[in-house]
Amino acid sequence: MGESASRILRILRDSGRYVSGQDISSELGISRTAVWKNVNSLRETGYSIDAVSNRGYRLLESIDLPTADEIGRHSTARWLGRDIIYMKSVDSTNILAMMLAAQGALHGTVVTADSQTAGRGRKGREWHSPPGTNLYLSMILRPPVSPAEASQIPVISVIASMRALGRLCPGLDCGVKWPNDVFCGGRKISGTLCEMKAEMDRVEHVVVGTGINVNMDPLNSDMPETATSLLMETGCSQSRSRLAAKLLEDFEAVYDQWLAEGSLKCFLKEWEAGSLLLGRRIDVRTASRIITGRSMGITESGALRLQLSDGSVQLVYAGDATLHGKFEIV
Amino acid sequence: MGESASRILRILRDSGRYVSGQDISSELGISRTAVWKNVNSLRETGYSIDAVSNRGYRLLESIDLPTADEIGRHSTARWLGRDIIYMKSVDSTNILAMMLAAQGALHGTVVTADSQTAGRGRKGREWHSPPGTNLYLSMILRPPVSPAEASQIPVISVIASMRALGRLCPGLDCGVKWPNDVFCGGRKISGTLCEMKAEMDRVEHVVVGTGINVNMDPLNSDMPETATSLLMETGCSQSRSRLAAKLLEDFEAVYDQWLAEGSLKCFLKEWEAGSLLLGRRIDVRTASRIITGRSMGITESGALRLQLSDGSVQLVYAGDATLHGKFEIV
Repeated sequence: MGESASRILRILRDSGRYVSGQDISSELGISRTAVWKNVNSLRETGYSIDAVSNRGYRLLESIDLPTADEIGRHSTARWLGRDIIYMKSVDSTNILAMMLAAQGALHGTVVTADSQTAGRGRKGREWHSPPGTNLYLSMILRPPVSPAEASQIPVISVIASMRALGRLCPGLDCGVKWPNDVFCGGRKISGTLCEMKAEMDRVEHVVVGTGINVNMDPLNSDMPETATSLLMETGCSQSRSRLAAKLLEDFEAVYDQWLAEGSLKCFLKEWEAGSLLLGRRIDVRTASRIITGRSMGITESGALRLQLSDGSVQLVYAGDATLHGKFEIV
Repeated sequence: MGESASRILRILRDSGRYVSGQDISSELGISRTAVWKNVNSLRETGYSIDAVSNRGYRLLESIDLPTADEIGRHSTARWLGRDIIYMKSVDSTNILAMMLAAQGALHGTVVTADSQTAGRGRKGREWHSPPGTNLYLSMILRPPVSPAEASQIPVISVIASMRALGRLCPGLDCGVKWPNDVFCGGRKISGTLCEMKAEMDRVEHVVVGTGINVNMDPLNSDMPETATSLLMETGCSQSRSRLAAKLLEDFEAVYDQWLAEGSLKCFLKEWEAGSLLLGRRIDVRTASRIITGRSMGITESGALRLQLSDGSVQLVYAGDATLHGKFEIV
C-alpha cells in the first residue's frame, strides 16, 4: 500500500464519519483526483469505502483485513513483520513466501492473505482457505542452524500460536497435538506447515506457515467436520489483524529465546501443560508403520517420546498421532 | 534431443565417415529438409558436423558432450539418469535441478551442462565453469528420509565420485577432504553442493550437484591456483560423458546401499582409506569459531570426529577444514 493510501486509511479510520475529498486533498497536499485514485486502490485491497456526493468518503465498519497497515497498528514485534506482504488472494502464503525467500527476502518478512486458492497443510494435505474469515500467515526466517536443529521450529510455532490464542481469547480451552496442531473441543483450530531450503549443514531459509480458523462459520462454508473456529468456540467474531499481531509478538519472543538457549528445553513444561495426548495411549502412523504406545511428551529436539508395552521409550521424529484404536484425532 | 536427431547422431557416429543426406533420409523415412534441420539442431546442441556437397554429413572427432545420448551409451545405471537434461549453458545445474524438482521432476532426473555462467560451490562460493572442458552434473533425488538423515548424502556423493574417478583413471592418486571435496596432489579436482527442500520431518527433494575438473588446462583459462584437472593429473584428455556415466552408476549403487542399510556405517572404512586428513592436526572453521584437533574420521551420520588437546572427542557437523596453522587445504 502506498504512503498516501495508508494516510487516507488512517484519516478515515480516525474520523469514523464522512470526510470530504477536499479535506483529505488539503491535508495530504495531493489533488482530489489523486485522493479518488487512492481510495480506489484501498477498495481493491479489500476495504469497503462508501462515497457520497457532497459528503465525501467513509470507511465502513467491520473491516478486518490482515494487511501490513492493520497488523502494524497492533503489533509491538521488533523484527518479525517489519515487512508484511498482504495478498487479497494467493495460491498459498507458504508458496509465495518460499519464492520470495529464494529471491532474497529479509529475515522476518511476513506474507498474509485474505484467501488461498491452494492452501496446504503438512504432506500436501488441503487447508480450507475461504476469503474474509480466517488467518493465513507465513513468516520467512533465516536461522543460523542446521537442518536437524530447524526441525524444532514447529514446536516453537505451536507454542507461539497457543500463547497468541490465549491472549486474544482469554479462557479459550485449547490444546496441542504433536507435532504441530492446536485443537479446541476435539476439533482443529490451527495448523502449521514449516518448509525449508537448505544445504546439508546449513539452513538457507525456513518458512513457517500458520493457518488459524478465526471467523469461519459451519453454516455457510465447506468447512471440514474436523475443524472449528474462534467464532464457534467463543461465540464472537474476532479480529484477524489483532490475532496476527499477537502471533508475531509471541513467535518473535519464543524464537529469540530458542536461539539464545539453543534448545527447546525451556518450552517443554509449557508444551506438556498444553498437550492433549500426554499420558494417553496413542497410535502414531509413520511412513512405514503404526507404533502404539503411551505419549510421554517430547524431547529437547522435538521428537515424540513413546513408551512401548515393554516399558522402553521410543523416539518418533515424524508421523501422525491419534488416540489408540480410534479414528478420532483427540 | 529429438528421436530423429538422436538417430542421425548414431548413424554418423557408427559410420565415422561422410553419409549422404539421401541415405539418412531413406533410413529414417524423413525428408532431406528434415535431415538438414535435425543436423542443425545437433550443431546447436554443440556437435561439430561437417557438411560437404555431394558427400554429405560427417561427425567430427573429439566430440565429448555430456548429453543424454552420450552418457546413455556408456551408463548401465538402472534409475539414475533415466532422464538427462543437457544444457549447452545454464546459470547453474543445481539451480535448474532445484527448479525442476519443485515442478515435480522424477527421482533420478539428471541435469548436465557444457558450461555454467554462475556455477556455485558450498556457501555460495564460485565454481569455475568454463565450456568444453569439465563436468557439471546435478541429480534430483527424493529419498524417504528426514532432513537430518539427508545430511549424510554429501558423504555418499564423495564416495561415488572417488569410485568413478578411480574406474575412469586407474591409479589416479586422489583423496577426500571432509566434508565433500576430492583432491589430487594437494589441489581440488571435484566438489559437491547438496541442497534440499524439506518439510521439517520429511525431505521433498535433494539435489546433489557435482563438479569435476576434467580437461581444464591452466594455460588457457582462469583456472584457480588451488584447482587441478584429470588432464593435468593424467596427462591425457578424458571423456566427460564416460566419467558422467561412471558417476551415475557408482552413485546409484552407493545410494541404494545407504538407503537399504539406513546408515553410513558400511562406507566408513572406504572413507577413511581415502581421507587426506585422518590422524592429522587440523583447524576447522565453523560459523562461530575455529576448533583445532586431530581428525579421527567421521561418524555414521557424517559428522567429523575431532580429538581435542584434552583427549576428548568433539563432533563437528559443519565447517571447513585445513591443516593446523596453515592456509593450505591439505
